[in-house]
Amino acid sequence: MKQLGKQTWEFTTRPAIVGAAAVTGPEEKEGPLGADMDFSFDSLDMDEKSWEKAERKLFEKASRLALVHSGLEEKELEFFVGGDLMNQIISTTFAARRLGVPYLGTFGACSTSMESLAVASMIVDSGGGKYALAGTSSHNCTVEKQFRYPTEYGSQKPPTAQYTVTGSGCAVVGFNDGSRQGPFVARATIGRVMDMGLKDPFNMGAAMAPAAADTLTAHFRDTGLSPDYYDLIVTGDLASIGLPIARELLAKEGIPMEKTEFGDCGLMIYDREKQKYVIAGGSGCGCSAVVTYGHILKRMRRGELNRVLVAATGALLSPLSYQQGESIPCIAHAVALENGGGKA
Amino acid sequence: MKQLGKQTWEFTTRPAIVGAAAVTGPEEKEGPLGADMDFSFDSLDMDEKSWEKAERKLFEKASRLALVHSGLEEKELEFFVGGDLMNQIISTTFAARRLGVPYLGTFGACSTSMESLAVASMIVDSGGGKYALAGTSSHNCTVEKQFRYPTEYGSQKPPTAQYTVTGSGCAVVGFNDGSRQGPFVARATIGRVMDMGLKDPFNMGAAMAPAAADTLTAHFRDTGLSPDYYDLIVTGDLASIGLPIARELLAKEGIPMEKTEFGDCGLMIYDREKQKYVIAGGSGCGCSAVVTYGHILKRMRRGELNRVLVAATGALLSPLSYQQGESIPCIAHAVALENGGGKA
Repeated sequence: MKQLGKQTWEFTTRPAIVGAAAVTGPEEKEGPLGADMDFSFDSLDMDEKSWEKAERKLFEKASRLALVHSGLEEKELEFFVGGDLMNQIISTTFAARRLGVPYLGTFGACSTSMESLAVASMIVDSGGGKYALAGTSSHNCTVEKQFRYPTEYGSQKPPTAQYTVTGSGCAVVGFNDGSRQGPFVARATIGRVMDMGLKDPFNMGAAMAPAAADTLTAHFRDTGLSPDYYDLIVTGDLASIGLPIARELLAKEGIPMEKTEFGDCGLMIYDREKQKYVIAGGSGCGCSAVVTYGHILKRMRRGELNRVLVAATGALLSPLSYQQGESIPCIAHAVALENGGGKA
Repeated sequence: MKQLGKQTWEFTTRPAIVGAAAVTGPEEKEGPLGADMDFSFDSLDMDEKSWEKAERKLFEKASRLALVHSGLEEKELEFFVGGDLMNQIISTTFAARRLGVPYLGTFGACSTSMESLAVASMIVDSGGGKYALAGTSSHNCTVEKQFRYPTEYGSQKPPTAQYTVTGSGCAVVGFNDGSRQGPFVARATIGRVMDMGLKDPFNMGAAMAPAAADTLTAHFRDTGLSPDYYDLIVTGDLASIGLPIARELLAKEGIPMEKTEFGDCGLMIYDREKQKYVIAGGSGCGCSAVVTYGHILKRMRRGELNRVLVAATGALLSPLSYQQGESIPCIAHAVALENGGGKA
């Protein structure tokens, strides 16, 4: 591993994503990327007695499926790195209990998808293990219940609100023996906490936009790359309010985003015209995870995309910090995925 | 970095702990290790309006003090790795906001102390950064409020209950240029989730003991070392109920613990005779952190100890998982600290 600038790691062996899976609820299946999901449950309760048990099922299904897709036997998996939005990242812990391998719990709210992928890639790249699974999950009803109101209340929301994705995305990162197909994990930029003083938990996109812009700016500064080096750059879950703000902040930094395809997983996963209940777009740990591991990786495998930068964004608030009048600290972690590479 | 066996990392460059700090509340100051703490607040509220704001103050104080002790300028610090018991690890996030450096949130309940030290050491050892700060915190009143009952209720507890340490411990891990004093981070064993079906949140020691035994067993199997290689082996917070169970489980595995000093941070930090309110002993993220960074490192610097293995234990339950009838998943991560080394 090599440090570029201050915040970026170049994975010199280019670990490969040897298997991945995206598992969702029914609403994501109905969205524009539904066909790219590896499995979708027909109901939000997934035949479980609580929303939390449903989320656990989601995560266990995705982690098992990623392992199946990797072609590995269960005992070959060496590490599991993951986290989720539930208090004490309990969904991840239950998935870890099922997997039975050494486990590093991580938390970066919705940026956990790329935080866990960066850490799993570091383990493999630095020789700490041959195979590490990275994953995360979110469930619309567990998150609404914990952070805002139980969905059963039917509370109304402002137009800036986002809709938490019911989904879990997992990827098995494997050491690069020169024969791998890829895609490969090329580099990662670890974000700083950004807090511009926003306090509205129904406007996460605006709160997180500065973190996305800061991490992307750091990425291009550290690597010396220009945005058009990538075929696609996506943020995690800025949605309709946050993405234009991030675009504006990047323009102020002199980063020319108009030369590349620049989107947001929260805008890609739902059809906001047909699925009006998603309001400003998708959010949640599962959002960038299922879009990346379900949709983007498949496009990369088909050769439609060769270089992709995923900047997953996270709002690190707790309900209690919000109730005590604190503003919302945010973060973004970016991971670059590339086709080709073998040994770099 | 080199993988030993399945679960253990050997840090081939031996990153150094270039500065550390342990900051506590008043009760830890009164305990047998009080004189080793770098700073102790006189009151549990630390002149803040909420327990959560007090915990944040504790963490910010410890991280700043660790940085001062390291002799680094603030801008030289490159990464911060940490977590705590609060929902969404909010205390750590606020400390990260203050530090302003790239931040990886981690969660392993009370094992977070050694999880964060292992990850920070991996970053430095693998060339991902020159300096990374690892840290964690807990506060008796925030933890009781979140996991059990607000301390203001004065609820009674069974004899198996432990007392959450009010404390934050932080360490700056620095690259090894051959001139460092140490102590050095030699190796880390990452634990698996162990769950023997226990459901009593007032008996964490018994729930966590199998995780401690499993990780220690893995450590000796992976490294080929015998327990008497170490001058001291401590578990995180098994306290009076858990430590004898761990000892028994290790005996069943044929690990001869009687040849070395084998203790528990939860038993070291308080005087259970004088401080009867701690019942079975200390617990919490801050427990192993302040004992390691406050007490053990000082003994190592004085040359009284040269090789120490800290196996921090964590109960990964959430109040909700407990309420929904789940058993308590547990984990332990072990880090070996050694004097001497320079470049390995």
